[in-house]
Parts: sequence; C-alpha cells; structure tokens
Amino acid sequence: MVVTTFIAGAISRASGANIVGDEDRMAIEEPLEIRLGRAPIAVTMRTPGHDSELAVGFLLTEGIIQKVDDITQIAGPDRSQPNVIKVKLRRELRFDRTRLNRYFHTNSSCGLCGKTTLASISVKTKTVASGLRITPSLLYSLPAKLREEQETFDETGGLHAAALFDAHGNLQNVREDVGRHNAVDKVLGAALIKKEFPLDQKILLVSGRASFEILQKALVARIPLVAAVSAPSSLAVALARKFKMTLVGFLRGESCNIYAGAERIGS
Amino acid sequence: MVVTTFIAGAISRASGANIVGDEDRMAIEEPLEIRLGRAPIAVTMRTPGHDSELAVGFLLTEGIIQKVDDITQIAGPDRSQPNVIKVKLRRELRFDRTRLNRYFHTNSSCGLCGKTTLASISVKTKTVASGLRITPSLLYSLPAKLREEQETFDETGGLHAAALFDAHGNLQNVREDVGRHNAVDKVLGAALIKKEFPLDQKILLVSGRASFEILQKALVARIPLVAAVSAPSSLAVALARKFKMTLVGFLRGESCNIYAGAERIGS
Repeated sequence: MVVTTFIAGAISRASGANIVGDEDRMAIEEPLEIRLGRAPIAVTMRTPGHDSELAVGFLLTEGIIQKVDDITQIAGPDRSQPNVIKVKLRRELRFDRTRLNRYFHTNSSCGLCGKTTLASISVKTKTVASGLRITPSLLYSLPAKLREEQETFDETGGLHAAALFDAHGNLQNVREDVGRHNAVDKVLGAALIKKEFPLDQKILLVSGRASFEILQKALVARIPLVAAVSAPSSLAVALARKFKMTLVGFLRGESCNIYAGAERIGS
Repeated sequence: MVVTTFIAGAISRASGANIVGDEDRMAIEEPLEIRLGRAPIAVTMRTPGHDSELAVGFLLTEGIIQKVDDITQIAGPDRSQPNVIKVKLRRELRFDRTRLNRYFHTNSSCGLCGKTTLASISVKTKTVASGLRITPSLLYSLPAKLREEQETFDETGGLHAAALFDAHGNLQNVREDVGRHNAVDKVLGAALIKKEFPLDQKILLVSGRASFEILQKALVARIPLVAAVSAPSSLAVALARKFKMTLVGFLRGESCNIYAGAERIGS
C-alpha cells in the first residue's frame, strides 16, 4: 500500500512585497471514527494511512485491549466510508466506557489535579522495571535516523513523527501524523500487530514535545525510555519519575536533558 | 495576579560523554475540568493561569455561548479544587450536549470525512465577510512582536502561543499554554470578557502549526485572518477556503505562504 500523507494545491507565495502564484504540499488531516461494534468511541483528527495500526494502538493505550488477539475483526476504512474503522473485540472483553482515558472524567470532590491523575493511573499500572542501559552517544544518534526517514515522507513540514528503536539504536519503525498522539498510537499499534511486545528494551523517540499523553501511552506499552527533540511538560516529567521511566528532552546534536531515570544512560 | 507557567526541578544535563546535575524549568501541564452547573463537560490538559478565559473561550468556540452575558457565574479554580472551574449559564440557554464540537460524533451512514465535517459546520456558520486588508510588511512584523512577549513568559521552550493583533499590527493580547488550542481559547475568551467583539478587523497569530481545530475556533470568533509560523493542515486550508478566511503559513522573516484568501494581503 502506498500511503500518501500530503496533497498538493495552489497557493500564493509572498516574499518581500512580491506575491506570486505557486503550488505547495499540505499534510492531510481528516477525521477518523473508531467504532467498537456499532458504537463510535472516538473521533480523532489524523493523517490517513496505517489506520488499523492507529486503531489498535489507540485501543491499547486506552487500556481497552492488551494483545492483538483481543481483536477478532478490523474492517475499513473503505471507499464508501473512508474515515471509519470498525473493530470487534473478543466476546469476553466487555467494553467499559469508563476505561477510556482520553476523555476521562472525575467524580472526585477533592478536585482534579496532576497528583490525582497520576494516582488514578497507578491503581492499574506498576512501575517500569527494565534493565535497559544505553550510552549518550547512542542516544545522540537517534534523531538523525528519524529525520532520514522523515525527509522521505514529510514534504510538508506539517507532520509529527514517532519512532521505535531497539537497544542498539536500530530503527524499528517510524510513523507520521498531524497529531503527535496518533503518530505514537500508530507505532505502538504496528508493534502490537507484529507481535513485537514486550517493548521493555525499546526506545520511543518523538519529533516534538513530550506531553503527559505521550508518556502515558509509553507507560501502557511498558517502554522504559522516551526521548523528545523538544521540551517535556511538568506532568510528563512527574509521570516518568513516578513510574521509573527515563525521559530525555531537547535531544539535539551531542547534548540533551535527562528529566527522569538518568541511571539508564551512561558509558 | 502573577501567572507562573513553569516550575523548576532537578535534572541531568548530558553533553558529549559528560552528564552533570543541574536545574531546569518545565512548562506546567495540569488537567482542568470545566463544569456546566454540576456536569463536567470537558477535561483539558492545560497550563494553569487565565482559567476563566480558557473556560469562556472554550464555551464560545464550542458554540455553547455567544456572549459573556450568557454566563451568570464563574467560580474556581480555588485552593480546595485547583483544577476545576464551574460555570453557570443563563436559564434560557439549555445546554445541549450534542453541540459540543470537540468530541463530535456522527450518525451519518455515508461515512465521516473532511467534506462532511465542513458541511456540518456550514449548517450553522456563514462565510466570514470582512474588508480587512493588510500589507505583506505588516504581516512580516507580527512574529517578532509575539516572540518579544513570549520570551518574557516562556523560559521552557514548552509552550504554544496565540496572539491577537489589530489591523495596524498592534498586539492586543498574548496567551501561552502547553496546548495550542488552549492558547487560542484563552485569547478569544479574554477578548469576549473584555467585550472586544466583533473581531472582524483582527488577526490571529499562532506560534506553531495551523490545524483544523485552530481554524474552526477562529471561524466561530469571526476572525478573518489566521497566520501561523509553521505549516497548516489540508483540512485547515479547506475550512479557510470554504468560509472565505485568509490563512497564512510559514510566516518567517520577510516571506510566507498564503493558502486562502490572498485578496486580503497586498500593498
């Protein structure tokens, strides 16, 4: 399957006082509705392509499935419904809407906060125990490997990328999307489909910032090390520390910041 | 009120083979629950501060309120519930959950797509008729004005910014947030609270990319011109064209791309 992540269109280019007609490429953004049986459970704005991986990764990181065999059927998108994907789960997996993290609601009268958010996660999740250890130089080599792949795909400047590497720095998979959480879901969904789990010796690299949502997804997939080219948020750092994950930010050239789990990085 | 958008914490800094302890600042990310009466209607991961503006902007761009007088009371966040904001609406405004765009669902059997998404918006929205016209050089001057403000606030590299300018390029307001949609909601909420509507002679500048969601918010606020420092998505461009908005991308130095509504830019 050839995946086209962009379309071309007529635009105007302004340079100084001159404005001339030209063509430009734009990253495709379209809604995808994920259905469980007949029930729509989510609509996400995504870049079409690898939609099965996106759906599988979403169901995994929302805690609805644990393994690919939990899914009995995936259908779509197709010509008549280009933005709908239909998933059927094993009969035993009664779907509980309250398990959907993304649109999580709280009834707690103490007020919602980062601390209670982390506490609610820790009810169902253990810390990440992984003996993964890599050198700084291996870490520094990762962004160039991602960019090499991304140059091929992203001719628009409008896509986020996520990549999975093994402990030797070998690129396992890259996915791109207008939504950074979708790029991560696609990479994780692909790994689940290819039965590459567990990921406890793997590294997740994201092309932009590391938010709470990205760390939460890596945690569910039990990935011990998340590296970002840009800044992490406070809650991403707090989550990484609480669950003994390693979080690297500002990974550029021969330097980076290590916000959590520095013991996994050394010579 | 002093708004702190970041916190400091201990980190490790790696440079080449050296790893040393240091301090760094991180953009704060915390959940905010928005309640209408007693019902939680949304949880968004945001940077604390200007939460009333965020709630007002959210309710505006989700089509739940049209003016600030639609709100009879806003309370919170407070010490006991630092991440909950409670809004009461005029009795006449019976809240209809189906009007929430953000988590929009479809029952259409023809399949969801960008085209149907735009069609469903156009049922309730007219094209933006604004005689605003600006020169390229005015446009080029905007990012520097935003950055000047942002340098003061963002010492973390982790915040998105949104700014409102008048037709002469005067900065009206800047807001920053870990979520780009929140930064836009805060700017629009502030304008609604200060009764600065209509915004049909205003310009919205965002520090990053222009997605469908950003354009949808600008459309609801009837802003004729949206400029982004980075790339727009295909659906953002399609929305701008359909509703006769002007969309500028890659606004850097003395150049930019004009994806829609080029007639508003000229000497």
